[in-house]
Amino acid sequence: MKRIKLEIAYDGTNYRGWQIQPNGITVEEVVNKKLSELLKEDIQVIGASRTDSGVHALANVAVFDTNTRIPSDKFCYALNQRLPEDIRVQKSMEVPLDFHPRYCNSTKTYEYKILNRNIDIPCYRMNSHFVYLPLDVERMQKAATYIVGEHDFKSFCSTRTQVLDTVRTVYSLSVVKEGDFINIRITGNGFLYNMVRIIVGTLIKVGLKVYPPEHIGEIIESKNRTLAGPKVPAKGLTLIKIEYE
Amino acid sequence: MKRIKLEIAYDGTNYRGWQIQPNGITVEEVVNKKLSELLKEDIQVIGASRTDSGVHALANVAVFDTNTRIPSDKFCYALNQRLPEDIRVQKSMEVPLDFHPRYCNSTKTYEYKILNRNIDIPCYRMNSHFVYLPLDVERMQKAATYIVGEHDFKSFCSTRTQVLDTVRTVYSLSVVKEGDFINIRITGNGFLYNMVRIIVGTLIKVGLKVYPPEHIGEIIESKNRTLAGPKVPAKGLTLIKIEYE
Repeated sequence: MKRIKLEIAYDGTNYRGWQIQPNGITVEEVVNKKLSELLKEDIQVIGASRTDSGVHALANVAVFDTNTRIPSDKFCYALNQRLPEDIRVQKSMEVPLDFHPRYCNSTKTYEYKILNRNIDIPCYRMNSHFVYLPLDVERMQKAATYIVGEHDFKSFCSTRTQVLDTVRTVYSLSVVKEGDFINIRITGNGFLYNMVRIIVGTLIKVGLKVYPPEHIGEIIESKNRTLAGPKVPAKGLTLIKIEYE
Repeated sequence: MKRIKLEIAYDGTNYRGWQIQPNGITVEEVVNKKLSELLKEDIQVIGASRTDSGVHALANVAVFDTNTRIPSDKFCYALNQRLPEDIRVQKSMEVPLDFHPRYCNSTKTYEYKILNRNIDIPCYRMNSHFVYLPLDVERMQKAATYIVGEHDFKSFCSTRTQVLDTVRTVYSLSVVKEGDFINIRITGNGFLYNMVRIIVGTLIKVGLKVYPPEHIGEIIESKNRTLAGPKVPAKGLTLIKIEYE
């Protein structure tokens, strides 16, 4: 018996997120099915990040145990033959049997893409959020500094969460203008339900000059979801990487 | 009566190309329908480039005549309200009544995106062509120099064409590596049927070391389609811009 770790990229457009659920097809479900077919074993992977419906990934992580003789590093090629073209395993490797993608300490990085110009560009519409009012990037960068660090992020968490401990550490948060895009990249030790999308929605309010940058500190202090900005659409969000200690 | 010029961006994925045809929906057809609804006139646009099924555009050009009082430069906003999200008019302006998007001299620029790495990335799959064998970009750049200039491009034209004069001028052809992408940008005074996609297919053969770069000159000389490389998929191709004299 060995444990194999997969790094999985997917276009989230046609999935109801990562985690198996009763209504609609999910990435986890497709991966389980294709793995089980390939190995002729009943495989149920353990995933690292339960990305939401419509969110994309360059490298979500999942593990499973198997007796297969397929070499661990070649495993991804065999599996990709069976997967639909919107899911591609980027890497496969053997890991210790006690490696758990959620319980082992990790650092996650997400990127949110905003297309900021007067008219939307169709080819980018499934991977970015279109904002037609001009955003002040410098203000957003200043606001971002208030997010970095260990904070109780209760104000930036959907009230539907079941989590009790809402303290997380954000290691970095960059706001970079590249042509018509504003790319927001955030790295942390974990994120609450919808936390990245609510942080971006709040930064947009700062960029639109609805909030002053300093107001972000007050929003954190308040621990009140209603003071933060709205949750931006899922399609602009991509899970970039997960790094383990 | 005035003539309005539109610059139209579209994601070609769900269309059978630009030009109206009996089987399947086209961009021209949708634009005509939405324009006619908006203006309550029977509008049939004249388009500049008949992009193929699956090819994208940042700025294809079309014109139409109208008596509308909507200001010409604001016209795009009114029209975009009605268009599906995979078509967006980027710009609208009044032009002289004798301006014709195909018969006036113009320079067209296309870009073809190749994703060159060991495993495909799902989010890029509708806008790039995935090649897993490593491509030698320097060889492709050398091969590109043979394409630039005025040549009879008969070898790079699908045999289904109805065009008799196959001489065209390519002003520039760049092959640039950006991360895992190889972006091929070509500017010319006009392109034959499938010419860009056959040129890219031939450059890929050079990048794979199937052909030496110098062989491109011989292919041009031969005026023989069977000596050039295969036509690459439409989805990697985008019409970037059309400039008029």
